[in-house]
Amino acid sequence: MRQLQDVLKRIQPVDTTRTNAVQAQLDNLTKPRGSLGRLEELARKYCLITGRDKPTIRNKIIFTFAGDHGVTEEGVSAFPKEVTPQMVLNFIRGGAAVNVLAKHVGARVIVVDMGVDHDFEPMEGLEIRKIGRGTRNMTKGPAMTRDEAERAVLAGVELVEKYKEGLDLLGTGDMGIGNTTPSSAIVSVITGTDAGKVTGRGTGIDDRSLQNKVAIIKKAIAMNKPDPKDALDVLAKVGGYEIAGIAGLVLGAALYRIPVVVDGFISTAGALIAAGLNPLVKEYMIAAHQSVEIGHRKMLEHLEQTPLLDLNLRLGEGTGAALGMSLVEAGVKILGEMATFADAGVAEKAEGVRA
Amino acid sequence: MRQLQDVLKRIQPVDTTRTNAVQAQLDNLTKPRGSLGRLEELARKYCLITGRDKPTIRNKIIFTFAGDHGVTEEGVSAFPKEVTPQMVLNFIRGGAAVNVLAKHVGARVIVVDMGVDHDFEPMEGLEIRKIGRGTRNMTKGPAMTRDEAERAVLAGVELVEKYKEGLDLLGTGDMGIGNTTPSSAIVSVITGTDAGKVTGRGTGIDDRSLQNKVAIIKKAIAMNKPDPKDALDVLAKVGGYEIAGIAGLVLGAALYRIPVVVDGFISTAGALIAAGLNPLVKEYMIAAHQSVEIGHRKMLEHLEQTPLLDLNLRLGEGTGAALGMSLVEAGVKILGEMATFADAGVAEKAEGVRA
Repeated sequence: MRQLQDVLKRIQPVDTTRTNAVQAQLDNLTKPRGSLGRLEELARKYCLITGRDKPTIRNKIIFTFAGDHGVTEEGVSAFPKEVTPQMVLNFIRGGAAVNVLAKHVGARVIVVDMGVDHDFEPMEGLEIRKIGRGTRNMTKGPAMTRDEAERAVLAGVELVEKYKEGLDLLGTGDMGIGNTTPSSAIVSVITGTDAGKVTGRGTGIDDRSLQNKVAIIKKAIAMNKPDPKDALDVLAKVGGYEIAGIAGLVLGAALYRIPVVVDGFISTAGALIAAGLNPLVKEYMIAAHQSVEIGHRKMLEHLEQTPLLDLNLRLGEGTGAALGMSLVEAGVKILGEMATFADAGVAEKAEGVRA
Repeated sequence: MRQLQDVLKRIQPVDTTRTNAVQAQLDNLTKPRGSLGRLEELARKYCLITGRDKPTIRNKIIFTFAGDHGVTEEGVSAFPKEVTPQMVLNFIRGGAAVNVLAKHVGARVIVVDMGVDHDFEPMEGLEIRKIGRGTRNMTKGPAMTRDEAERAVLAGVELVEKYKEGLDLLGTGDMGIGNTTPSSAIVSVITGTDAGKVTGRGTGIDDRSLQNKVAIIKKAIAMNKPDPKDALDVLAKVGGYEIAGIAGLVLGAALYRIPVVVDGFISTAGALIAAGLNPLVKEYMIAAHQSVEIGHRKMLEHLEQTPLLDLNLRLGEGTGAALGMSLVEAGVKILGEMATFADAGVAEKAEGVRA
């Protein structure tokens, strides 16, 4: 645990001393003060996190972490687990939703095999960081060992380390049949909420399967007794390899001061683990959207995040992150590309507005 | 009124017979059914409006309509009215927020002088369709004549006619110091809501100025007695030239079956007028965002629209429309660019999901 402890110790709070200076820059632009709402907030946040002055966003990467889940034996998903490796190949070939949306917003997708139950050949756009061929069935014992959990988190940190040169914006994504189950377990444990209140239909299970899913999650929690105060324990006992990778990416983003746009339910479970390990990461993350999954709201509240979008998405992969990244870029461009009142010869707000 | 009546008669309902066929195309793609929520809705809507099968969006235009308002004499705005022509020049030079966001999403901005109190030289990117040098002060009589209102609406229709070749997506925008005042008046009259409940701070007036603004709106309505059942009467008496142009653009969009993304408060006032003239236009419009202006929600309810975004924007110009257009394009790309289950060799939803 020394290596991870070292990462956690090196994360610094965001320096907010320039908040007013950045807002003053925004207030000089040809628009009423504050009239671009959250776009201005995103511009400020971006500048403060990165320490950059008039930034330009050129290089955006979405990391889509993939893993399998032993708990799929319990019939928690509407899709067979073979879909995980099939979708990884679909990502590599560019045919998935995240590829389309990433291309739309000018981002690159890198797929990370954290623990898919399939051996991939090395391929362009694939990072193989496999910890195991799927987690173990968490109703029968811990999903992974503490050592595996730590190595999986460090893999996420290392990806930021590897790609950080010239990287302007990060996005998270996930793929793993069955992974709403560990995500619901994580939010249940960390926020102390009954599993029934934070468990949804994932890719689309019926009422009876949903009841079973809730029971499975409760059983896994009862069996493993994860310690809510020890995020690595929660991750190891009821988490997943891709969730661990996402947690690591969020930690790495904070360590290297790169804003990270967090996708939906599974990604936010990863962010919960990261924030459990070091709450400072909350200052570096931007919640992309409000997912349809019912447990997502609880996660976002716990992380003190207001999502940018609410489009009834429930796909994951980084699809919501892609759209959110485009909004961050929009905010940053407002700051960098708009004319000032002085430049444009536009009069500012009248002083003596008649009552 | 013959020419406008002719436009209104030629607008057809959207043909929804292909709804299931388009949804079936979406359901064949490598994602759980319906998991892309509103992006799928946008793809369907786009296909049905245009009658196109696997559309591609290449050519997007935001029309930013500008006009001045006689009612600014009454001290309803925080900015002097000279800002309207100054901002028109800022749009032409590309320094305004709408320029930055339009460029970000790959759209073109065309500014339309509907009634600015300034004479512009002909310029690239400017359409001069001036009806008058600002409306008259609506507290002292109608803002414009019925004939002027009709000509202003027809100018908007004609712009769609002029640019429609190869045009894939329209956006609306506005510029006009004082124009939240007529917009609040319009929503008050058309929805039968007390002006105090639908009047906000516009570019940023204080409490006392807000009280004055509400009183001014009530006075204008009492003086002119616009007929809520006659949208052209409402427009003429308490509207504005840029609002008329927007109404015309929305009508033209419906006439030529081009989806139109409606920006915030002022644009939606234009859409209210258009829907008053022919309710079928509601099927062709997409509400970009929920504005901060308190009357906007009432407008959207009346038009049966759920906005795509809620980013605390209150700028207008077409800034929200630009962001909304990017989401429409995202939905259309999902339909056109994703792999199908068969293409990608991905298994579909399991038939016999346990329990």
